[in-house]
Amino acid sequence: MSRKILVVGAGKSTSFLIDYFLEKSDDEQLHLTIGDINPAVIADHIQSHESCTVLQLDIFDDAQRKEVISESDIVVSMLPARMHIKVAEDCIVFGKHLVTASYVSDEIKALDARAKEKGLVFINEMGLDPGIDHMSAMQIIDNIRSKGGKMLLFESFTGGLVAPESDNNLWNYKFTWNPRNVVVAGQGGTAKFLQEGTYKYIPYNQLFRRTEFFEIEGYGKFEGYANRDSLNYREAYGLQDVLTLYRGTMRRVGFSKAWNMFVQLGMTDDSYQVENSEGMSYREFVNLFLPYSPTDSVELKLRHLLKIDQDDIRWEKLLELNLFDGEKTVPLKNATPAQILQYILEDSWTLQDDDKDMIVMYHKFGYEIHGAKKQIDANMVVIGENRTYTAMAKTVGLPVAIATLLILNRKITTPGVQIPITREVYEPILKELKAYGIIFKEHDVPYLGYDPESVKN
Amino acid sequence: MSRKILVVGAGKSTSFLIDYFLEKSDDEQLHLTIGDINPAVIADHIQSHESCTVLQLDIFDDAQRKEVISESDIVVSMLPARMHIKVAEDCIVFGKHLVTASYVSDEIKALDARAKEKGLVFINEMGLDPGIDHMSAMQIIDNIRSKGGKMLLFESFTGGLVAPESDNNLWNYKFTWNPRNVVVAGQGGTAKFLQEGTYKYIPYNQLFRRTEFFEIEGYGKFEGYANRDSLNYREAYGLQDVLTLYRGTMRRVGFSKAWNMFVQLGMTDDSYQVENSEGMSYREFVNLFLPYSPTDSVELKLRHLLKIDQDDIRWEKLLELNLFDGEKTVPLKNATPAQILQYILEDSWTLQDDDKDMIVMYHKFGYEIHGAKKQIDANMVVIGENRTYTAMAKTVGLPVAIATLLILNRKITTPGVQIPITREVYEPILKELKAYGIIFKEHDVPYLGYDPESVKN
Repeated sequence: MSRKILVVGAGKSTSFLIDYFLEKSDDEQLHLTIGDINPAVIADHIQSHESCTVLQLDIFDDAQRKEVISESDIVVSMLPARMHIKVAEDCIVFGKHLVTASYVSDEIKALDARAKEKGLVFINEMGLDPGIDHMSAMQIIDNIRSKGGKMLLFESFTGGLVAPESDNNLWNYKFTWNPRNVVVAGQGGTAKFLQEGTYKYIPYNQLFRRTEFFEIEGYGKFEGYANRDSLNYREAYGLQDVLTLYRGTMRRVGFSKAWNMFVQLGMTDDSYQVENSEGMSYREFVNLFLPYSPTDSVELKLRHLLKIDQDDIRWEKLLELNLFDGEKTVPLKNATPAQILQYILEDSWTLQDDDKDMIVMYHKFGYEIHGAKKQIDANMVVIGENRTYTAMAKTVGLPVAIATLLILNRKITTPGVQIPITREVYEPILKELKAYGIIFKEHDVPYLGYDPESVKN
Repeated sequence: MSRKILVVGAGKSTSFLIDYFLEKSDDEQLHLTIGDINPAVIADHIQSHESCTVLQLDIFDDAQRKEVISESDIVVSMLPARMHIKVAEDCIVFGKHLVTASYVSDEIKALDARAKEKGLVFINEMGLDPGIDHMSAMQIIDNIRSKGGKMLLFESFTGGLVAPESDNNLWNYKFTWNPRNVVVAGQGGTAKFLQEGTYKYIPYNQLFRRTEFFEIEGYGKFEGYANRDSLNYREAYGLQDVLTLYRGTMRRVGFSKAWNMFVQLGMTDDSYQVENSEGMSYREFVNLFLPYSPTDSVELKLRHLLKIDQDDIRWEKLLELNLFDGEKTVPLKNATPAQILQYILEDSWTLQDDDKDMIVMYHKFGYEIHGAKKQIDANMVVIGENRTYTAMAKTVGLPVAIATLLILNRKITTPGVQIPITREVYEPILKELKAYGIIFKEHDVPYLGYDPESVKN
C-alpha cells in the first residue's frame, strides 16, 4: 500500500522536489499527487510517471481542496506564502502533516497547539533561506556548545547568483528568483544588527554602501549587505548573549555599489505611480530623477548628480542596461519606478536556457572555549544544471522533499508548528543533502578579532 | 448688541489673532469668548479685557462644546487640524460660520453641501502656508490673466526662520514652529513637480541636495527644497496648462546640505524605536549609525562615511550641536531616531525670550503676453517681535482674524467649504494685511529662460 504525498503548487522551485519523490517512489512505495492551478506546464516525464497523478487544483475551491488533502498522508505546500493557511487549516482538520519552505506566519503559528494535540508535524522554513541556513547553523552551534564552547558571534549570508560559467555581464548578476524582491530589497525598514554588543542601524540609503566581504576558495570574492532584522532567530538559536549577530544577502563584489545608483536616484521606489509611464523610453525614465536642464544631456546630469568619474566602471554598467536608450520603451501602464526598473533589468538579466545559477551561503561562528577565542567559517556553493534544474530549485526543494519522507518514515516525529533547528530534524536532512552535493566546507580561522577591552565604540 | 466671536484653542499662533479682535472690540462691537483646555496660560491682558470671556473648554465634552458654539455668531478653530471636525459639525447644526488655518480634510470637505444650504461660510487654509500663499499668488495670477497673459510657470516657497538679529548659530536656524515637522520633513513621500512640461521626482535621500536659490534684497540669499506634491492646487489655481509648477520650503543657504547628513545617517527615521534609548549619550546615538570599529573614533567614522573634509563647515555645524558629547544624555524611553534627534536639536535651536523669528515667502510667476515671455517675482519678509509675538503667529493669525471680521460684516458672503483663492476673499484681506506690515514686493524680472525649442530633456 503506497503512501500518498500531495504537493500543492508546482512552480519553478519544485523540479528537484518532485523528481526526488518520483525516483524513490518504488523503493519507498510513494504515490505523488500534484495539484496546480495550471498543470499544463508540468513536465512530460512527471505527467506520464506511473506513480504520479497531476490534477488541476484551485486552492480557493474549498470542496476540491478538502477532498485532495483528506485523501493524502502528508501535504507539501509550495504555494505563495500567503496561501498556505487554507491548506494548513485543512491539514489540522483531516490530521495530515505539513511541510512548507515559507516563513512561519502568525496565522500558521496559531495552529501550534492544535497540531500538537493531533500529533501532527508542521515544518516550515524548510527551504534554502530560510531552511538550509537554520540547519547548517544549528548543527555547528550545537557542536560548539557540546564541546563546552560559548557562542560570541554569528554572521550568516546567502545569495542567489549566476554561476561563473554563465556570468557574462558587468553586474555579475542575473535574476534567478523573484525579480521584484531584488528590486525592492532593503525597503522593508532600517537594517538592524548587533556588533560587539552595540546595536547598529543602517538606513536604506546607506545599505548598499556598508557591505562586508567574503572569499570562497575556488569561487573568488563576494560581498554582503545587511538584512532588515538580523536579530530574528536570536531566541530560536539560543544566541541571546551573543555580542555580534549579523545576517545578510550576498552579491558579487561591486554589485551593491552600482545598485546604490538606482537607490540614490529613487528608481527603486515602489510607493507611487509615475505619470504617463506607458510608452516612456528608458531615457525618459532616467530623466524623471534628474534636475531639469534646457541644454545638458541626461548622461551628464546623471554623472554629475551621482559623481561618476570618467573611469568609473559603474558607468559601463549603466550603459550595458541600455539605460540611456531613447528608442526602447516601457509598456507598463501606471507603473511605479520599481516596476519600470524591473522591466528594464529583466531585459538584460533574465537567465537564458543554458545559463546556470549559483547559490552561495557563508556563516561565521565566533566562540570562546577554555579561555581562547576561536572562529569557524563555513560556506556552501551549489551550481545549477540549467534554467529548470536550478541551484535555487535544488536547495529549496530537496530539504522539503527529504523532510517529507523523514516524517512519513517516522524519523521526524515531534509534533507542532516548527522550524528546522532541532537535531532530530537537521541531522538526517543535512546528511542526505550531502549526497546531492549540498555540502558545507568548514574552516577554523582566527577569531574576527574584536577586542572588547580596546573597543572605542 | 455686540457680535460674539468664539475662538477655540489659544495656542501659540493666536497672540496677534486675539489682540486684533480685542483692539477692534469697541469700534466693531465685538465680544470674544476664548475656550481652551488650559486657560491658565492665556496672557493677563486678555484675561482681564472687558470684551473677553476666557473659559476652560474640553473639545471632547459634547454638551459644553455645543453650548458655547450655539451661543456664538462665528467660530474660529485654532485647534490641531484633526480636531476641527467636531467643531465644524456643530457649526452646521447651529448655523455658525467657521474659519480655520488648516488644510481642508476630506471630512470637512464633505460638509460643503450642507454649509451652502445654510448659507454658511467655512473658510479653511486661512493662515500663512496655506493661506497667505494662496491669496498672494491668486492676486498676481488673476492680474496677469486680466491683462490677457497666459501662465507658464509658478513656483512658490515659504520658510519659517530666525530673524537676522537673532541668527547666531552656524545653521542659521532655530525652531519657530513644531520641531517634529522639521525633523521628519520630506518623509511623506517622493517629491513630485513639473518643470517645462516634464514630471520630476526627487527621493528623500536627494531632497536636501536638489535645492534652488533665491535672493531677497536686504535679506541676502536663501535656498529652497521641494515639497511633497507641488501639483496640489494645480486645478484650484487654474494652472492645468502651466509648464512649471514647483512648491517648496525655504532655508538659509547651507542648511539643507548640512541637514542631509542626518538624512544620510538615518537619524531622521521615525519608523522604529532605538533599543535602550533612555540614558543614551549623544555620542552613543551617533554611533548607532556608524560602522563598528574596535579602534576608530566616532568622529573619524562619521567623517569617513559622509566624506567630510577637514575644512568642511558642516563639521563645525555638528560640533555646535554637541553631537559627539559623551556626557549629555537623552532622557527619552523607547524613542525613534527622529525623536532623539529632535531632542538634541531642541537643546540648541530653541528660540530664546528675546529672539525674533522671520517668515519669508517667494513666488515666481512666468507668463506669456502679446508673444513675449515675462516674469514677476514677489517676496514677503515678516520679522517677529519676540517669542510670543512671532512673525509666525502674525502671519497665521491675522488673516484668520481679518477674514472672521469680514464675514461678520458681510463683506465675505459666498457660502460653502472653501480656501482663500477668490477675489472676494483675498482682496480685502491682503489690503488689510499691508497695514500690519505683511507686504509683498513685486519685481519684473527676465523670464527664467527655459527655451522649449532648445530643451534636450
